[in-house]
Amino acid sequence: LKSLHTSCQHGSAHPYGEDSTETGMARLSLTDSDKDVREWFIESAKALGCHTHVDQMGNLFAIRPGKNKDAPPIMMGSHLDTQPTGGRYDGILGVIAGLEVLKVLEENSFETEGSIGVVDWTNEEGARFPVMAVSAAVWAEAIPLDTAWNLKEISTGDNTSRKTMKEELDRIGYVGETPASFKANPFAAHFELHIEQGPILEDEGRKIGVVQGVQAFKWFDITVSGRDTHAGTTPLYARQDAVLCAAKMITTANSVAKKASGLATTGIIHSEPGTVNTVAQTVNFSLDLRHTFDEDLEKMIAECVAEFQRIATEDSERGCTVEWKELVDSPAVHFDKDCISVVEESAKAVLAKFPDPASGGKQWRDMISGAGHDSCYTNRRCPTSMIFTPTRNGISHNPVEYCSPEDCAIGANVFTTSSGRVASV
Amino acid sequence: LKSLHTSCQHGSAHPYGEDSTETGMARLSLTDSDKDVREWFIESAKALGCHTHVDQMGNLFAIRPGKNKDAPPIMMGSHLDTQPTGGRYDGILGVIAGLEVLKVLEENSFETEGSIGVVDWTNEEGARFPVMAVSAAVWAEAIPLDTAWNLKEISTGDNTSRKTMKEELDRIGYVGETPASFKANPFAAHFELHIEQGPILEDEGRKIGVVQGVQAFKWFDITVSGRDTHAGTTPLYARQDAVLCAAKMITTANSVAKKASGLATTGIIHSEPGTVNTVAQTVNFSLDLRHTFDEDLEKMIAECVAEFQRIATEDSERGCTVEWKELVDSPAVHFDKDCISVVEESAKAVLAKFPDPASGGKQWRDMISGAGHDSCYTNRRCPTSMIFTPTRNGISHNPVEYCSPEDCAIGANVFTTSSGRVASV
Ligand SMILES: NC(=O)NCCC(=O)O
Ligand SMILES: NC(=O)NCCC(=O)O
Repeated sequence: LKSLHTSCQHGSAHPYGEDSTETGMARLSLTDSDKDVREWFIESAKALGCHTHVDQMGNLFAIRPGKNKDAPPIMMGSHLDTQPTGGRYDGILGVIAGLEVLKVLEENSFETEGSIGVVDWTNEEGARFPVMAVSAAVWAEAIPLDTAWNLKEISTGDNTSRKTMKEELDRIGYVGETPASFKANPFAAHFELHIEQGPILEDEGRKIGVVQGVQAFKWFDITVSGRDTHAGTTPLYARQDAVLCAAKMITTANSVAKKASGLATTGIIHSEPGTVNTVAQTVNFSLDLRHTFDEDLEKMIAECVAEFQRIATEDSERGCTVEWKELVDSPAVHFDKDCISVVEESAKAVLAKFPDPASGGKQWRDMISGAGHDSCYTNRRCPTSMIFTPTRNGISHNPVEYCSPEDCAIGANVFTTSSGRVASV
Repeated sequence: LKSLHTSCQHGSAHPYGEDSTETGMARLSLTDSDKDVREWFIESAKALGCHTHVDQMGNLFAIRPGKNKDAPPIMMGSHLDTQPTGGRYDGILGVIAGLEVLKVLEENSFETEGSIGVVDWTNEEGARFPVMAVSAAVWAEAIPLDTAWNLKEISTGDNTSRKTMKEELDRIGYVGETPASFKANPFAAHFELHIEQGPILEDEGRKIGVVQGVQAFKWFDITVSGRDTHAGTTPLYARQDAVLCAAKMITTANSVAKKASGLATTGIIHSEPGTVNTVAQTVNFSLDLRHTFDEDLEKMIAECVAEFQRIATEDSERGCTVEWKELVDSPAVHFDKDCISVVEESAKAVLAKFPDPASGGKQWRDMISGAGHDSCYTNRRCPTSMIFTPTRNGISHNPVEYCSPEDCAIGANVFTTSSGRVASV
């Protein structure tokens, strides 16, 4: 898996140690460094005897033909884009391990029954264009192509220059000819190897998570509107202060989530006109709400809607208004039972070779993913499941994100075994 | 005062009505539209027989020589820069009225004893470069020239491209040769005509505010640091969420100000890395705190410091840190007694010609300014006072800011009489 660090030369950022691998990443989707790693990916895949093609969302497919060339391929997929302060494993591990599987097959001149391939999905993170896994969603026909193409990058303070996905796909030359749809481009199955991004495997001393599904989440862009007035001459009681109103909402969303044992996060907040001595007229903030169960998530949202309305009208002096715009709706996901079984059997087989008495012999466990993944969408259109590896201190979306070479190798082994088993039938 | 609207062609923005004068302004300091209005100002002043010169901060001085050319001039000053969503009166009225005074003198071939002039102070608003009246402060030697020159514009999301005042002064060609100091460039006195920016004159049906002084205020740039982690996999209890922490601080500052009968405003807030699904690592927000009395302002600040510390360490799960950086320190200002008397006598004389039974005969009143002004700094180095005119609905720092032509004319009349009285002795 050395090529993980080779590929990470494109977009490397935020060094935190002496070693050349002790850095994080800033490879936002459809930037120049994403273009560079795409070229690296295509070359690497071709060197392994793959055909490659690109779809209308810039999703990259590398296929190693099997005996039966007409059947849809088994795909191993994840993403090469990262957060602005991201790590070297989230997404990247899954794509690189997919190439490794193909390399093992190629080096052993192994001919699979069906074709097998790797996919790099565009903008999984939702960091630059704020809809996570948007390109897997287009493939699954869960989001229309035009909606995705017209999706604007998040504001950098200057609204006039915000680029759309289509503009940036065009700019880096990755609007492909393959229709972005499971109908024109079907898969037999989709497997994804990923770091857990949470602390559970590490805390319990286990090596593999057999992922059963993904928690429910929704993303919103909330706009609070008040009135811009002078900060030195406008009495507090006469204000319509959008920043103060938003601050109360953010604190309240946290309380609602805490009470419901869910999650609430505001990662983006921006005020207009944005000067020290003007009460803000408008605030935009992001709200990411999650819960294991769909019904509980809906309850959390309903409570936030009611509370935000109360804050805007009754707890903001002369009153503000609040608008909700939904960006992402990802209901709880339940992966394919057969795929889960294959992963579980593979985990047992591989881990038998790595006995570790510390974990009482059972070095894997079932788990639910806290993060969303491309697999949430492929699961709607083909049998899908995921394999998790441990994550140091449970830290992800941070440059120090880390999974040891040994743990990556065990994960890749389980991945190879799972994909190999399915490709052999 | 028609030239008010002529000058406002440069940087006109945010129209709100049919009439060409029903628009606001976006003429941020040292932008191209500021450059344009500076050229207009210099031409207009030269046409009135003035000498003009520019100092190292880009402050523009237009002087009409009197009989005694060696004595320092009496200056009428304010500013031509605006907020990004500003109006056509804040600052602009004072400069334009100053030119009008010179025009009246010129048209009547009136020779004053001392010289008399108009000054346009650079970046009074503190909207682009976040220190209000910074260039008057340099003239008063309250802020070192280098500190001001190196002051960076507020973040537009992309930290690498933030320009300094010196860079922008150079770019528009307004680093003048005159030293920016009252020592090299002394004034006999400084008068400033300005809109009130609050509702008091309008509410009481009065026409003129005889300004006694300015309330105390300080500006801060607050940095909250936490840790960037994944919004879907990091339990609430394990977070160091800089946005949530900042939200609690902003709400608390408002409560502190309310209790103290002072003001607290956060107009700017910005989070890093700034994606929907990453808990923010850093938040910067501005805090503008004001109170009539210095001691009460200090108490408010002490309470905010203590509360913010408590929130960061005890009410932010795994804890955040908070840093305060002071941007502006403007203690309560008490204007010159003689200047105040001149304005009061002038107001009485002028208003006698505009009787209005509605206000019970007394159409002026003493007042304290809620907003800071260039006069806060000139007052440290020469006799200074201000004249206020009414402001519709007390709304300022907003495109709909308005002072009727009649009220502007009365203000300009009082201004002419005050300046004329002083220039004649
Ligand atoms: N894997 C990952 O971090 N995906 C981002 C989508 C999410 O926010 O859950
Ligand atoms: N006149 C005016 O709005 N000046 C800005 C300085 C302040 O914020 O008080």
